[in-house]
Amino acid sequence: MTEPSSLWQLSARGRGLTDSAIRALTKRIGATSGVVSFAGGLPSPATFPETEFARAFDHVIRHSAKTALQYGPTDGFPPLRAWIADALSTADRRIVPEQILITSGSQQGLDLIGKVMLDPGDGVAVETPTYLGALQALGMYFPRYLSLPSDDQGLIPEEVESALRHAAPEGVCKMIYSIPTFQNPTGRTLPLARRVALVEASQRSCVPLIEDDPYAALAYDGRQHTTLLSLGGDHVVYLGSFSKILSPGIRLGYMAAPLPLVRKLEMAKQASDLHTSTLMQHVVFEIIKDGFLGPHLKNCQALYRANAQSMHDALHLHLRDCARWSAPTGGMFIWLELLAQLDASALLDAALAAGVAYVPGGPFFATSPKVNTMRLCFSTGTPETIAHGIGILGRVIREAAT
Amino acid sequence: MTEPSSLWQLSARGRGLTDSAIRALTKRIGATSGVVSFAGGLPSPATFPETEFARAFDHVIRHSAKTALQYGPTDGFPPLRAWIADALSTADRRIVPEQILITSGSQQGLDLIGKVMLDPGDGVAVETPTYLGALQALGMYFPRYLSLPSDDQGLIPEEVESALRHAAPEGVCKMIYSIPTFQNPTGRTLPLARRVALVEASQRSCVPLIEDDPYAALAYDGRQHTTLLSLGGDHVVYLGSFSKILSPGIRLGYMAAPLPLVRKLEMAKQASDLHTSTLMQHVVFEIIKDGFLGPHLKNCQALYRANAQSMHDALHLHLRDCARWSAPTGGMFIWLELLAQLDASALLDAALAAGVAYVPGGPFFATSPKVNTMRLCFSTGTPETIAHGIGILGRVIREAAT
Repeated sequence: MTEPSSLWQLSARGRGLTDSAIRALTKRIGATSGVVSFAGGLPSPATFPETEFARAFDHVIRHSAKTALQYGPTDGFPPLRAWIADALSTADRRIVPEQILITSGSQQGLDLIGKVMLDPGDGVAVETPTYLGALQALGMYFPRYLSLPSDDQGLIPEEVESALRHAAPEGVCKMIYSIPTFQNPTGRTLPLARRVALVEASQRSCVPLIEDDPYAALAYDGRQHTTLLSLGGDHVVYLGSFSKILSPGIRLGYMAAPLPLVRKLEMAKQASDLHTSTLMQHVVFEIIKDGFLGPHLKNCQALYRANAQSMHDALHLHLRDCARWSAPTGGMFIWLELLAQLDASALLDAALAAGVAYVPGGPFFATSPKVNTMRLCFSTGTPETIAHGIGILGRVIREAAT
Repeated sequence: MTEPSSLWQLSARGRGLTDSAIRALTKRIGATSGVVSFAGGLPSPATFPETEFARAFDHVIRHSAKTALQYGPTDGFPPLRAWIADALSTADRRIVPEQILITSGSQQGLDLIGKVMLDPGDGVAVETPTYLGALQALGMYFPRYLSLPSDDQGLIPEEVESALRHAAPEGVCKMIYSIPTFQNPTGRTLPLARRVALVEASQRSCVPLIEDDPYAALAYDGRQHTTLLSLGGDHVVYLGSFSKILSPGIRLGYMAAPLPLVRKLEMAKQASDLHTSTLMQHVVFEIIKDGFLGPHLKNCQALYRANAQSMHDALHLHLRDCARWSAPTGGMFIWLELLAQLDASALLDAALAAGVAYVPGGPFFATSPKVNTMRLCFSTGTPETIAHGIGILGRVIREAAT
């Protein structure tokens, strides 16, 4: 038989594909037993509304099995699209159902944006650091990444325009990609004044915004931040997801985009996977249509708030003189910057051996990685296991620093 | 606000995207009431195992909700992958679970193949005519299509090598894409001798095969055709689907590929949508693991056989002297070639007005469309409505031909 490697001639894209650093790491952690893992990034299974899924599935099979099990429209199940449009609309900015495209998780939204907008070499401006999965998804279309200056409160709007101008000679910048609320990996949240300034900067620069917003509903005080979408309207593509509030295993996300663009995204989706599971769209609509999310989100917020508080307190106890971080106000992450110039990826072996796991921060930088950083995810586990794990991490870091 | 069309600068791929001909047609038919439609291409809702879905879903939520609702591995749910590998294995050719990648419908398999294998201008050899959705999916990667000579029995293997050789000066041909069994749109099935010869021709030419096989289980005599995969092994990527045997609304497909290649496809999938619904994979495995498909497929086969027979008989009654077709032995389609040089797309208005719909054959040709062709899908409806619809179609065609 012919050798597959010579027979199967890959594309430039195929040749360039490599396993994600986090994925390799997850395998390594999986193979190590008895570890307190802050590496995952998974929502807490305690938040999965199992009973509601069972009830909704039963209802859908009883009342609309023939439709729910059949092929469906590429843009999605109309009542779900209408519900999402309504949820995204504000007093000042109405989003219409025609702007909504249902996606197979919001990761697919990133792939579709790459397909429809990026030619090789086009610029994509990102936060420093940014979501690794976005770098992967958009990376399939060979962009040139530009890291925008960011601080503890996220993007620094005053520096966006000059950064874009500075990069202009290298070619067109097609988009600014941002996770303004409870960012992955840092947990940072952009204050309202910065949101307004960012939208204005992007409008003046004529570079549109991609707002990735999967964590918005996990605010510990239950308050919604003003979206870039509501501020910027047709200047923004918004990506949302049910992964962090119902279940990531169902792979259900959505995007809101300006009308001419959303039709192009829909055609790209049709070529990519025809449509997202009709059945899952029916089931999720059945779960959320009568106000289930209100009390449910309060429970999720309480769970994550308690875990975040425990991690923050434990960090303060064990690491306050050798690392810096910000107390999160929502989401699932704390970003730790070590004061000593330690390489967090070099430290990982010792950490695993001691019984704790994290994700080294390097891979989250589009350019110029800061290696003395790590992402700590507190979504799974209890306040007690989290405090215990941070205690171990503290000893590992102190030992390495001396 | 800035005009979206000028703000949102599309990629070359984005600018080139247009709505599929079938999709536009489906909307047109949907807007016309009282039409017998042979246009759909949808499986019969009567074949959806609703009770089994309800039972399996209940079981999964009771026994493995925490896993089924959580993120899962990109390559898929291990027991489902093992089941598929076993189902694809033959006495002569063992397929291992590591070769299986679960996809969001087999349409996604085509997108991943395009991603991993196609650089702009690469050749893709296809049947004449071929599946429109494949032309769309692979078309996103700017291939150069080569139409391979085909007759009533499908691809003509003797002409494959010379066709590939003839096209060689234009650049490398990366793959031969084939639906050997109950093809969409023609219903044709490649005989065993041709399968053997096709695999040999592709091996001698060093051009691998993509075998798209969603209809294989719908053989009216219940017998399985020998797959190209079992003949060609590492020379073949196989695409399979649960759409035509359980439900298309769940978007669950799979591919079997040589080991080095399947890892690349997996990485491309990770960037595209992380993974396919864990929940749906659990549910489908729960449905099929104990032999449900055996008796279920017999029912599907009987339903489609009766519909096919009715369409064939009615065509014989109404159109035997003005069209040619082959009686299908499985699947959901009959391909009609009109003897008069009528343009089937020009005829569609009259057909819709008279009360019958079909898909004109033109869009299924990668190059040089034969416009006097149409695809008739008999999967939905009953033998009676089908006979009635063909009666109408007969009158429309006879009227146009005189």
